[in-house]
Amino acid sequence: MAETQKKITGASSAALFQIFRDGQARTKAELVELTGLARSTIQLRIDALIELGLLAPLTDAVSTGGRPSAQIALNPTARVVVAVDFGATKVSLAVTDLAGNILARTSSKMLIADGPETCLGWMVRTIRSELAGLKLKEADLIAIGIGLPGPVEHSTGKPSNPPIMPGWDAFNVPGFVNQHLKATVLVDNDVNIMALGEQKFAWPGVENMIFLKASTGIGSGIISSGVLQRGAEGIAGDIGHVQIARGSNVPCRCGNSGCLEAMAAGPALAEKLSLAGAQFKGKPIAALVDVIEATKAGELAAIQAVRQAGRDIGEVLTTCVSVLNPSVIAIGGSLALAGEHLLAGVREVVYSRSMPLATEHLTVAQSRAGVDAGIIGASVIAIDYALSIESIDLMTGAL
Amino acid sequence: MAETQKKITGASSAALFQIFRDGQARTKAELVELTGLARSTIQLRIDALIELGLLAPLTDAVSTGGRPSAQIALNPTARVVVAVDFGATKVSLAVTDLAGNILARTSSKMLIADGPETCLGWMVRTIRSELAGLKLKEADLIAIGIGLPGPVEHSTGKPSNPPIMPGWDAFNVPGFVNQHLKATVLVDNDVNIMALGEQKFAWPGVENMIFLKASTGIGSGIISSGVLQRGAEGIAGDIGHVQIARGSNVPCRCGNSGCLEAMAAGPALAEKLSLAGAQFKGKPIAALVDVIEATKAGELAAIQAVRQAGRDIGEVLTTCVSVLNPSVIAIGGSLALAGEHLLAGVREVVYSRSMPLATEHLTVAQSRAGVDAGIIGASVIAIDYALSIESIDLMTGAL
Repeated sequence: MAETQKKITGASSAALFQIFRDGQARTKAELVELTGLARSTIQLRIDALIELGLLAPLTDAVSTGGRPSAQIALNPTARVVVAVDFGATKVSLAVTDLAGNILARTSSKMLIADGPETCLGWMVRTIRSELAGLKLKEADLIAIGIGLPGPVEHSTGKPSNPPIMPGWDAFNVPGFVNQHLKATVLVDNDVNIMALGEQKFAWPGVENMIFLKASTGIGSGIISSGVLQRGAEGIAGDIGHVQIARGSNVPCRCGNSGCLEAMAAGPALAEKLSLAGAQFKGKPIAALVDVIEATKAGELAAIQAVRQAGRDIGEVLTTCVSVLNPSVIAIGGSLALAGEHLLAGVREVVYSRSMPLATEHLTVAQSRAGVDAGIIGASVIAIDYALSIESIDLMTGAL
Repeated sequence: MAETQKKITGASSAALFQIFRDGQARTKAELVELTGLARSTIQLRIDALIELGLLAPLTDAVSTGGRPSAQIALNPTARVVVAVDFGATKVSLAVTDLAGNILARTSSKMLIADGPETCLGWMVRTIRSELAGLKLKEADLIAIGIGLPGPVEHSTGKPSNPPIMPGWDAFNVPGFVNQHLKATVLVDNDVNIMALGEQKFAWPGVENMIFLKASTGIGSGIISSGVLQRGAEGIAGDIGHVQIARGSNVPCRCGNSGCLEAMAAGPALAEKLSLAGAQFKGKPIAALVDVIEATKAGELAAIQAVRQAGRDIGEVLTTCVSVLNPSVIAIGGSLALAGEHLLAGVREVVYSRSMPLATEHLTVAQSRAGVDAGIIGASVIAIDYALSIESIDLMTGAL
């Protein structure tokens, strides 16, 4: 209790550091004024933060009095974080500085179903080689943000009954990684981190938004009052198994029937087109990738299927609009990348079925961060931790 | 910017006061340790807060050294707030201290459709007479929390196209009240404040919950990550016009058809029972009050209608469960008070249609705050403001 309040009220170096997170430079006199702390205390804290490299004096600052005043600011190059976005069949990894600038990036084909040791082992090796390539030490790495394609218990970083991740259930991801690397590990659901990435990339300042991913599965990440919403069990936004009106008799892998995912996700579209005998370039449409290619090429049956998927997704999003009253809905995932057809279906239903007040200032748009949404979002959670009171306290010894 | 940070980092009296909001008593030595401020600064701030009556020395505290130490704590009786809950046809008003203890309360029949001057005029007169009855001055009143039965733009306190409140659209509620009383006025939608009241009364510490009100209309108040969610336009939770599967051809007053409210709210049930010739005690069931009485008395047709309304509401709540992953859904409003039938219908659908992980720790319960949910919630928003940095700054002159 006492420790927490000390941090809140500005007595520690870490609390003082929080003032600099907006990127603005400040003089010691301003810090005395801002915090009410004695000048000698400020000096001590600032010296510690400068020694760690987290703050740095600006050299070009000129005070109104003529003599250059010692302005100090956050030094984003002091440390790095790693962002990792695991999908079902591929993984992307980036090293960024504390401002989110990408210093190095790589990606690889990888089956998440190969299990945590294989996937995380690759991740650890790749982090080491990327750091070495940048001539950085492991001690320069503060945090690793990881997105996984399934439900994750946010507080522990353990996947929770993930349907497409055999071997990962309740696996202690941070514990495993920390056997090899000391950095703090933050794990979240991939759609959650995509929502954060989309917000950071395209909608800074938007406090109420929904990011929808439509691909092999359908899920969403929800930001309300400026905060990513995880819910009581970490599965907020998991809308793939909401029942839609037109599909009550179609069985879903979850055991229920008529679920959104069973009607509108990639495999459902491929199966529907395949059963109807739809072809593209003389070959049957049999998989999600065929649906996307056929749609991009203007194949009518594929376009109609994707547009109807958009309407189905729109039906669920319409309820989300009433419940959450967002100002932005961003539609991402591979189905959204197949042109405007999915988006058109979503808009058709959301705008016709919502109350006017809810759609007056609502933007429904294609994801702008695109394939980078996940990696940007993973860096957001890693940097957010790296600059936090908890993290800076660890570095300063809670001075 | 500088002013905000001064407040955040503990230099002002108001920031120092925030430490006492948990109700715990503290010595000046502890405050020096907690904040890093000089003892002389602490003394100055504490003296100002004691002079205002907001803090008070405890007399029974004994330090480990033998001599009594001067422990100081929040004094909840220093000031009062007023909580007002306007419904369509009645109003409740309470005066509470800063701990939420009700000092006086009253209620009255009143038509919200009589317009803002009439309703708020009654409110101002009643506040004056209640304060006089408690031998309090107007200056003792810090804030007035008001719930209104329609959408409210939270930042301005102006109703926004409220369907059942003629004359109230864009009416400047705080501006009107402040012509008569100086206290800060906070206005919110009635279901939002009921959600806060239900949380305060029955579910302290629950961070993800939905309060549903079913009566003449159907609406919900949403608390996620511990915060009441208002959305981009202040209409989050307004789920009465979500389309439900079974009702696509029933016209709704909103202009669409098949809305939840058109199928499951009180007037819809009364009309359905009336058309079917249902009777109670020899008279036709013609209004919501008849539906409630007939249901309570065990009339089968009424029970069946209420149970089906529960299923319809459950359909929409099932989507809310996927979207928000709450740990509590509390069902309130007059239809919920007609026994367990509404709740039974809600549970039937929510538990059968949701993913196991979402319902494993989900409680679906009747509202426990009952008819007091609104008045408790209105006091919560008023007290929350009264103890805020902004409010205490006003009182201390931002010392």
